[in-house]
Amino acid sequence: MTSPLKVGIAGLGTVGGSVARLLQEQSAVLARRCHRPLQVVAVSARDRNRKRKTPLDHLEWLEDPRQMIGHPDIDVVVELIGGADGVAHDLCTGALQAGQHVVTANKSLLARHGHTLAALAESRGVTLAFEAAVAGGVPIVKTLREGVAANTIERFYGILNGTCNYILTTMAKTGAPFAAALKEAQTLGYAEADPAFDIDGVDAAHKLAILASIAFGTQVNFAGVYCEGIRQICREDVTAAASLGFVIKLLAMAERTADGVIQSVYPCLVPKDRPIAHVDDVFNAIMLKGDYVGEMFMQGRGAGGNPTASAVVADLIDLANARQTRPFGTAAAELESLPGLPITRREGHYYLRFQVRDRAGVVADITGALGREGISIRTLTQRDESHSGGSVPMMLTTHRCREQAVQQALAALAPADYLEEPPHLIRIEYL
Amino acid sequence: MTSPLKVGIAGLGTVGGSVARLLQEQSAVLARRCHRPLQVVAVSARDRNRKRKTPLDHLEWLEDPRQMIGHPDIDVVVELIGGADGVAHDLCTGALQAGQHVVTANKSLLARHGHTLAALAESRGVTLAFEAAVAGGVPIVKTLREGVAANTIERFYGILNGTCNYILTTMAKTGAPFAAALKEAQTLGYAEADPAFDIDGVDAAHKLAILASIAFGTQVNFAGVYCEGIRQICREDVTAAASLGFVIKLLAMAERTADGVIQSVYPCLVPKDRPIAHVDDVFNAIMLKGDYVGEMFMQGRGAGGNPTASAVVADLIDLANARQTRPFGTAAAELESLPGLPITRREGHYYLRFQVRDRAGVVADITGALGREGISIRTLTQRDESHSGGSVPMMLTTHRCREQAVQQALAALAPADYLEEPPHLIRIEYL
Repeated sequence: MTSPLKVGIAGLGTVGGSVARLLQEQSAVLARRCHRPLQVVAVSARDRNRKRKTPLDHLEWLEDPRQMIGHPDIDVVVELIGGADGVAHDLCTGALQAGQHVVTANKSLLARHGHTLAALAESRGVTLAFEAAVAGGVPIVKTLREGVAANTIERFYGILNGTCNYILTTMAKTGAPFAAALKEAQTLGYAEADPAFDIDGVDAAHKLAILASIAFGTQVNFAGVYCEGIRQICREDVTAAASLGFVIKLLAMAERTADGVIQSVYPCLVPKDRPIAHVDDVFNAIMLKGDYVGEMFMQGRGAGGNPTASAVVADLIDLANARQTRPFGTAAAELESLPGLPITRREGHYYLRFQVRDRAGVVADITGALGREGISIRTLTQRDESHSGGSVPMMLTTHRCREQAVQQALAALAPADYLEEPPHLIRIEYL
Repeated sequence: MTSPLKVGIAGLGTVGGSVARLLQEQSAVLARRCHRPLQVVAVSARDRNRKRKTPLDHLEWLEDPRQMIGHPDIDVVVELIGGADGVAHDLCTGALQAGQHVVTANKSLLARHGHTLAALAESRGVTLAFEAAVAGGVPIVKTLREGVAANTIERFYGILNGTCNYILTTMAKTGAPFAAALKEAQTLGYAEADPAFDIDGVDAAHKLAILASIAFGTQVNFAGVYCEGIRQICREDVTAAASLGFVIKLLAMAERTADGVIQSVYPCLVPKDRPIAHVDDVFNAIMLKGDYVGEMFMQGRGAGGNPTASAVVADLIDLANARQTRPFGTAAAELESLPGLPITRREGHYYLRFQVRDRAGVVADITGALGREGISIRTLTQRDESHSGGSVPMMLTTHRCREQAVQQALAALAPADYLEEPPHLIRIEYL
């Protein structure tokens, strides 16, 4: 009998609780799939007395998770506390320095400090594993790092935030406005009381920066992500998109070009017949393109205790089988530092919505401003809503053009007195 | 500089040629992702003088691939010859016995001898890797064996044969009959001159048996796969399915129940709104369900030189990074031998098509026979095609019932003189 791999779990919230339960419930399965048994020896959580589904009283309880650092009985620290700095950062840094493996689901930590932590892990010959940090139960980290490692990855895009996807799906299915869809998501536990982190795209941007590092062999560059959330998406946009054959999705996209990496998170119009367009509710999905494998698509549950626990324990199984990997696939010292390219470099199609006072000359003025920037119009819809007091929405889509040209045209239009609100721009991605 | 991992490639057909090219073209990417360099040292192919895209003249050419067995310069044998027995079997067995790793894309070999070969590899402490044997570039073997290893897998199903999927997609899109769609697939190189192996479902059954072993921790049991191909699918079926909200797909499905494993390959009606229904042309896809991860879906290119080479080299990268795995995840000695359950155990919905002479009493007779077996009818369509000389198709779907009951009803109807041909049965899978 080989010695067990001894695990300390820091944080017993939804995910931590599921990890503890999984390790108990699946012990027979895990025994067959691991060379060494997995054994939880210590836990740390804010409230020891909280009622839990899994009996944990026989374990060592540590008041401060930092007591796991260098603890002689702990081979692997499972960090499920969260937060880019503070205790989580102390714990992960300390444990790696002490020669302990770290398994974490903490995307904000990795987006901010992933490169430093990876270099530290490599220098100590231990593993920093984070399958659970991106797309919950979907093993996209392993797939990029190992499954398609023979490829030069050209680009990838995905739905990496279940909260936004739930809201956008609800708006499309029920015609609900943004605020009502958000409220429903909150009621169902899919959105936080303070939803900013999700709906402003920050969470998706964290995950994107992590995946881009693995895919392109570059240093994690969260600051280089262009990020736009979904607050400004209106019912009109959802309806107009549908009538043009699109759905609106918050996509996280990354592309490696000759002169840098483009990383962006924004809501966009996606043709209805693409696989990503069918990813509804809280599901996550990723489409990647490699030079040999071609397009590959994965879809699954991106959040929740059980799917996330599935990913955390997959990392533990790898460790129990002595399958070690550099955190980002490429050695940290060899990860390139490439410039992030600004969104103004984008070339593509655009959807624009103007809320205008219904009077003569408006269409000519708007299309004229676009024309002066060399932007040609593909479709134009003006809805007859004279009952709404002379204010009507005007939606148009463009042919392929430069983002910079669109921004300049919108800036030129900004002073126009017939505009009831600033123009809305949503990018179109034919994918 | 660490010593390279030395590779011998046996078989330089479409896949072997792509593997050789990939290893040359991606050498910079691979160097960053591997602890040890990958170096091809020897090759073996039937025709040395064939013109190839990749220069291989500097390598050692072996007349007989079996000369790789125990070759002191070869750490890994990449077997791309094919066939369940003969040279491929000799080579893999010999190489493993000699303590060399084996990477293979040979599904028929694994479906027949996978368990024996895995036991041999484990006893010698070497790896038998076969990502390329199932679903081409889609890393489903790694995903089942590692990515979702923390789960008890309840069931999975997939489209594992691109040839059949191309034919069925073409029939659905163009209205072509089976023979014409097959011919088109042959012209495009998607089907062999002798297509039996693909269209009779044997290829999908091989892949299913391999995946079921990993997913359920059971011994590969190819003989236990119930297998039906797509030859009998007619335009009428495709049209009727579409009008009922279904598409026809050849699904490979496996489920672990309390008393055994059900493995089956058959064409079936799938609701249009399921992800698998959108998998068209030569794409492969798999949906799995784990108790923690929930449903997870993967889709990509299941065949062709480049995607398959992506999978072969992924296995080589794992080896160059000392990531070793038991071939089927569970130790060969612990893989259970469970009975395969017969298809008559199935309970579900059915689509039946009868080509009948149009005369009084036929509908009553058919529905009566079904009723006597307790089968209740959900929809019934009889098309008015009196121009076709009194022979009309009658399509019906059933409510949930036992397969055995359906088979008995059809047997009872067999002698009926109004039947122009034997009744067609296609199962419906709501998934």
